[in-house]
Amino acid sequence: MDEGRVIEVKREILSDNTKAADEFRARLRDKRTLYVDVMASPGAGKTTLLLALIKQFREDAKAAGEPEPGLGVIEADLESDVDAQKIKAADVTSVELNTKGVCHVEMGMVERSYAAFGDLADGFDYLFLENIGNLVCPADFDTGAHTRVMLLSVPEGYDKVYKYPPMFGVVDALIVTKSDYLPLNPDFDMDALKRQAKVLNPNLQVFVTSARTGEGIEEVVQFFRGKREALLGK
Amino acid sequence: MDEGRVIEVKREILSDNTKAADEFRARLRDKRTLYVDVMASPGAGKTTLLLALIKQFREDAKAAGEPEPGLGVIEADLESDVDAQKIKAADVTSVELNTKGVCHVEMGMVERSYAAFGDLADGFDYLFLENIGNLVCPADFDTGAHTRVMLLSVPEGYDKVYKYPPMFGVVDALIVTKSDYLPLNPDFDMDALKRQAKVLNPNLQVFVTSARTGEGIEEVVQFFRGKREALLGK
Repeated sequence: MDEGRVIEVKREILSDNTKAADEFRARLRDKRTLYVDVMASPGAGKTTLLLALIKQFREDAKAAGEPEPGLGVIEADLESDVDAQKIKAADVTSVELNTKGVCHVEMGMVERSYAAFGDLADGFDYLFLENIGNLVCPADFDTGAHTRVMLLSVPEGYDKVYKYPPMFGVVDALIVTKSDYLPLNPDFDMDALKRQAKVLNPNLQVFVTSARTGEGIEEVVQFFRGKREALLGK
Repeated sequence: MDEGRVIEVKREILSDNTKAADEFRARLRDKRTLYVDVMASPGAGKTTLLLALIKQFREDAKAAGEPEPGLGVIEADLESDVDAQKIKAADVTSVELNTKGVCHVEMGMVERSYAAFGDLADGFDYLFLENIGNLVCPADFDTGAHTRVMLLSVPEGYDKVYKYPPMFGVVDALIVTKSDYLPLNPDFDMDALKRQAKVLNPNLQVFVTSARTGEGIEEVVQFFRGKREALLGK
């Protein structure tokens, strides 16, 4: 295997991808849409967290007497539509992106998925990409998002920073999920996780959440609201 | 991005890899070593299961008045040596394989790791490869193993078969881990998991285990013993 050639091809692909990502980012900014890339291992609870966030966004708007924010979701999956069905059941505008076995999402896929929303996309205040369940490949590919976040579930264990450094390095926030499992995991060292993650990525924000108990969900919603306001220059 | 060209390069790489894998498989068979590839998501409990299996192998040998089986472990990780240190602490002959960010293990890496064992490898009855924490990429790359197994932890959820079909398709056994979490996961539908997995892979063996309680560990050890006997034509 000619490693030199393979790396060369990869570099070329990544550079084309980054150019397309920058254009997409600017385009969605002009549409006043904050675009969020959500990454994690399989089973970390991406779909469940998204459903909890969507519910919170809607409840907050209702409590404030404001119109519901426009929300869209791109559901990336290797093959199936299991998650896309769950999102649709919650009455959220969503598009299913099947990568056909590819372990990451790249810009061609994002652009085709976004086009599939048609005019509906004009009303999005927030667009979420639920990326492929994978802590490795997605870190390499800019998906054109304004902010990238990663989830880490308590049952996975806290010792993941040194194992998956690229992922921890590219995200703006680490969202610890399934905090209701903490009593069962006395070895889960939250302080060590935060410390290690911030050594690698000093600007990282860390949230501790449970979709089951509701812990931390409002804080994550506030984080995204703040990101959107910053994007729009408010 | 020229998808045609990239697929062509990938096919070439895979074909070279498979040839090397077949040679390696034959070589380890001649050495009477059963070589097992262990795959799973990050945090599914690969290292913990390996430690439990090793302990069981040793205890069984002691109880039977037999010599301890020769055990070796190749610990693949993107960057760190977190898992390799745990395996070393259990006094197991191990080699650390850093893929430097690559999301799968391929034969060049296996061969170099195996060579690093030196003469020690001659005494292996079993060699385990703890593959990269990833349910996608490793499925594509034959690692030269005689048997491949995957782990799925209860907290990840049971609905993974349709999401990661290539992985479920290439393994001989599905080892469900962290079964002590089942009481906390009333939605985990074990029957549905088994049914879906066996539709995709009719010969799949399924084990339900907990390294914490010891459930199922002896059954997995028996499975590997049976595989080794079959390999040696006993």
